[in-house]
Amino acid sequence: MNSSFRKLQNIAGKAHCSNKKEDLACYAYDATARSYLPDAVLFPRNAEEISAILILANKDGFFVIPRGSGSGMTGGSLAVSGGVILVMSRLNRILEIDKDNLISHAEPGVVTGRFHQAVEKEGLFYPPDPASSEFSTLGGNLAECAGGPRAVKYGVTRDYVLGLEAVLPTGEIIHTGVQTAKGVVGYDLTRLLIGSEGTLGIITRMTLRLLPLPEAVRAMTAVFDKMEKAAETVSEVIRRGFIPRTIEYMDNASIRCAESHLKIGLPVEAEALLLIEVDGKVDEADMLIKQLKTVCMSQGAKLVKIAENEAEVANLWKARKAISPALFKYGPDKINEDIVVPRSRIPDMVRKINALKEETGLTMVSFGHAGDGNIHFNIMLDKKNRAELKKAEEAIEAVFDHTLELGGTISGEHGVGITKAPYMAKEIGSVEIDLMKKIKKVFDPKGILNPGKIFPD
Amino acid sequence: MNSSFRKLQNIAGKAHCSNKKEDLACYAYDATARSYLPDAVLFPRNAEEISAILILANKDGFFVIPRGSGSGMTGGSLAVSGGVILVMSRLNRILEIDKDNLISHAEPGVVTGRFHQAVEKEGLFYPPDPASSEFSTLGGNLAECAGGPRAVKYGVTRDYVLGLEAVLPTGEIIHTGVQTAKGVVGYDLTRLLIGSEGTLGIITRMTLRLLPLPEAVRAMTAVFDKMEKAAETVSEVIRRGFIPRTIEYMDNASIRCAESHLKIGLPVEAEALLLIEVDGKVDEADMLIKQLKTVCMSQGAKLVKIAENEAEVANLWKARKAISPALFKYGPDKINEDIVVPRSRIPDMVRKINALKEETGLTMVSFGHAGDGNIHFNIMLDKKNRAELKKAEEAIEAVFDHTLELGGTISGEHGVGITKAPYMAKEIGSVEIDLMKKIKKVFDPKGILNPGKIFPD
Repeated sequence: MNSSFRKLQNIAGKAHCSNKKEDLACYAYDATARSYLPDAVLFPRNAEEISAILILANKDGFFVIPRGSGSGMTGGSLAVSGGVILVMSRLNRILEIDKDNLISHAEPGVVTGRFHQAVEKEGLFYPPDPASSEFSTLGGNLAECAGGPRAVKYGVTRDYVLGLEAVLPTGEIIHTGVQTAKGVVGYDLTRLLIGSEGTLGIITRMTLRLLPLPEAVRAMTAVFDKMEKAAETVSEVIRRGFIPRTIEYMDNASIRCAESHLKIGLPVEAEALLLIEVDGKVDEADMLIKQLKTVCMSQGAKLVKIAENEAEVANLWKARKAISPALFKYGPDKINEDIVVPRSRIPDMVRKINALKEETGLTMVSFGHAGDGNIHFNIMLDKKNRAELKKAEEAIEAVFDHTLELGGTISGEHGVGITKAPYMAKEIGSVEIDLMKKIKKVFDPKGILNPGKIFPD
Repeated sequence: MNSSFRKLQNIAGKAHCSNKKEDLACYAYDATARSYLPDAVLFPRNAEEISAILILANKDGFFVIPRGSGSGMTGGSLAVSGGVILVMSRLNRILEIDKDNLISHAEPGVVTGRFHQAVEKEGLFYPPDPASSEFSTLGGNLAECAGGPRAVKYGVTRDYVLGLEAVLPTGEIIHTGVQTAKGVVGYDLTRLLIGSEGTLGIITRMTLRLLPLPEAVRAMTAVFDKMEKAAETVSEVIRRGFIPRTIEYMDNASIRCAESHLKIGLPVEAEALLLIEVDGKVDEADMLIKQLKTVCMSQGAKLVKIAENEAEVANLWKARKAISPALFKYGPDKINEDIVVPRSRIPDMVRKINALKEETGLTMVSFGHAGDGNIHFNIMLDKKNRAELKKAEEAIEAVFDHTLELGGTISGEHGVGITKAPYMAKEIGSVEIDLMKKIKKVFDPKGILNPGKIFPD
C-alpha cells in the first residue's frame, strides 16, 4: 500500500490524502457503530481524480470505498476489508437551480439539508428528507435510495433523479439518464446506480427533479391508547382517499425517549402517537388537516391537536428526529431495522412485535413512517451480554420472517450493506442474487469498489 | 424450425400456436408501418409456458419476440430477424385491486384503458395514459416505459411499478421489487426491466402503484397566433409554480388535421392551441383553471375557453388523440419522432422546426406534451419519392442534433427499437452503450430475446 499511497498523493495532492491513524479513525465508523480502519483516506476534487484513483486501484489491487457523511445505517461506507476511503466532501457544489425547468445540477457532497434550504429559497421543493438530512449528503442518499417521512405523498430519492455522472469502478466517466422530464433511450443505468450502495460506480454529479414549494404545511398529532388503533387509523386515512405528506408514528417507548431528551410536553402515557402533515394551497391544507382530525377522532383517538404555528411543528419534528439517537438511554447497543409491510398489515406487525417483546423481555422501540408501512424497529441491549444478544438476533429473524410473510421487505430505505447481507437471501431468490452479482461483475470485474456489501457470502 | 414448432405446440397447445402465413401476417407489423413476417406466433398462457419456450429457444436456437398489441412506435415488437412472436393477450387478468394499500397486481396482456376503467370504478387512479391506451397493453407500456399527457404532474410508467414477475431469456422465472411503497434490497432489477423494450426479460406479472382518483378534472383550450407565444406560455405556467396535470399543444397542421377528421369546431386558423387540464378537489380544480386562464391571457392568448362539461373535455381529447392516425391525409408515409427538450427550450425547438419546414418544403406537423418538453414531430411524405425521403432523413438528423444541443433526448416515451437505433450513439456514449450490451449479455447470453433492437450494429 505504501507505493500506491505515494501514487495517490500524486493524483489528489498531498494535502488531500492521509494514512495517519488519527485521520483514519475519523473515517472508520458509521451509524451502525461498527468500525473498520481503512488504509488511507482521500478527499478527491472531481471526477477526473476519482477516475485516476480507480484506474490505479485496478492496477495495484486495492479497494476503494466512497463515503458521504458516514451516516448510513447498514455499513455501506465502511472499509470492511481495508482500502482507500474516498470522502466526497470537496464535491460539494450546487451547480445550478433551474426554475424554468424545475431541475438542479449538484455534486454528491452537498449536505441534503443545505440543498433543501437552497432550493426552498427559490420557491422550489426537493421532497426526499431522510431523518439524517442535517448531515447526510445527496450522494449518500442516492447510493442508498433514501426515503424519509414525505415518501407517502412524494415518493423516494429514486423518483427525483433524472440523470447522473458517475465514475465506473474501471475508471471510465459515464453519463446516464436525461435532464428532461422524460427519457427512454437505452437501459435505465440511472436507477441501476441509485440504491446500489456505492458498489457499481461513484456518483460525481446529479440532475435532480424539483417541484414548486407547497404554499402551506399543516401538522397535527393524534394520541391513541392502543397501538393497533393508531395503525388502523393509518389504513383508514388512506382508504378514504387522503394522501397526507407524512404519517409518522411513535410507540410509547419512543415518546418517552424523545420527551426525556427534549422536554416539550409529549404525552408520555400514550401508547401511540401519530404525527400527520398535509401540504398544498393554504385553504386546501387548512381543510385537509381538519378533515383528518375528524377521521382520527372517529377512529378513537384520545386527543388530536393541530399545531398552531411553525414553532410547534418544528418541535414535533425535533422530537421525531431525536428518537433514533436518544434511544441509547435504554441500552448501550442498538439493533436498528427498517422493515416495510403493506400499510394495511401494520396492525399485524405491531401485534407480532408486542408478542416478541413479552416473550423475550427485551427493550424494543418502534417508530417510523406509518404511511408507507415503513417501521423502524429497534432493540436496545448490551451486546456484551451474550444471552441477550442471542435473544435479540432471534427476535430480529422472527421480525424479518413475519415481514416477508405479510408481503413486505426487510429494508425500506437503509439498504443492505453489511448488517442485512446475512438476511438478504430470505427476501431475494438465488437466481435474482446471481443476476445482481453478474451485473456487479460487468461494472467491476476486479471487485475493487466497496467490497463485502449487499451480497451474502 | 419445423421440429421446434412441434415442440412449441406441445408446450402451448396446438390451438395456441400457428405458422400459417395468414396468421403470421397479423403479427408482422406495428405502428411503424414496417412489416417482418415471423416464423411462428404463439399465445402462451402463463409464465411457466413462457419459461419452457425460452429454454427451448436457447436449445434449438430460435428468436423469441414478446408482443402486446403491436402499437409500438419504434418497432420493439417486430420479428426483424424472424423467430417466434409471443402474443401476451391470454395473460390478461387484473388479479387484484387493493384499495387499502393502493396497489394492483395485473398481467401484462391487460389493455391499459381497461385497467383505467377497472381502478377508477374503485375510486382509484393509474396515471400513465399513452395516446394508445384504448388498445395498448400494460406489458407493452412497461417494456417501453410509456409516458403520455399526464406525466407533467404524475410522471411516467416507471413511477407506478413496484415489482415484477418476469421470465429471463434463459427461462428462469424471477421476482423483482416489492409490493410496498418503499424497498431497497439489492439492485433495482424492476427499473432495469422497465424500458428495456422486451430485450432483458418477458414480464408476466406486475405490481402497480395506484393513487386515489382526483375528485375533479377541469380543462381549457388557449389559442395563440404564434407558436412561440404558446411555448413561452408553457414556461410561464411552470415558472409561476403551477403543475397542471397536462399541457398539450397542437400546431396549425395538427389542428386542421384533427378538425377535418372530427368536425368539432377547432380553431383552424390558430397557429397553436394549448390544451390544459388540472385536477384535485372540486374547489381547487375550479380555482386553478381560472388562474391558468389569467396566465394564458396575460401571455397574449387570443382566446381561452374553459370546457363547460365532460362531453366538451372528451371531444378535446378525441381531437388530440386523433391527430397521429389522421395525419396520413398529408402523405402516405409518416416519420414520427418523440424528442424531448427542457421545457424552457421549446421555443428554440419550434423556431428550428419552422426553419427546417421553410428550408425543405416538407410537410411537418408537431404536437405533443408541451408540459414535459416532449414534442411529437412528424414528417408526412411519400417514401417512394427518394429525393423527398432523403430531405426528410436529413431534417430528422438536424432535429435530433438540435434536440441534443438543447440538452434534450431523442426519445421521451417511444423507445429506441429499430427506428432510432441508428441515432442512439448521438445521445449515448460508447462506454455506456458497451455497458448496456454487457448487461444484455448477462441476461441473454445467447441473444435469443428480441434481437436487433435498441443497439446500433
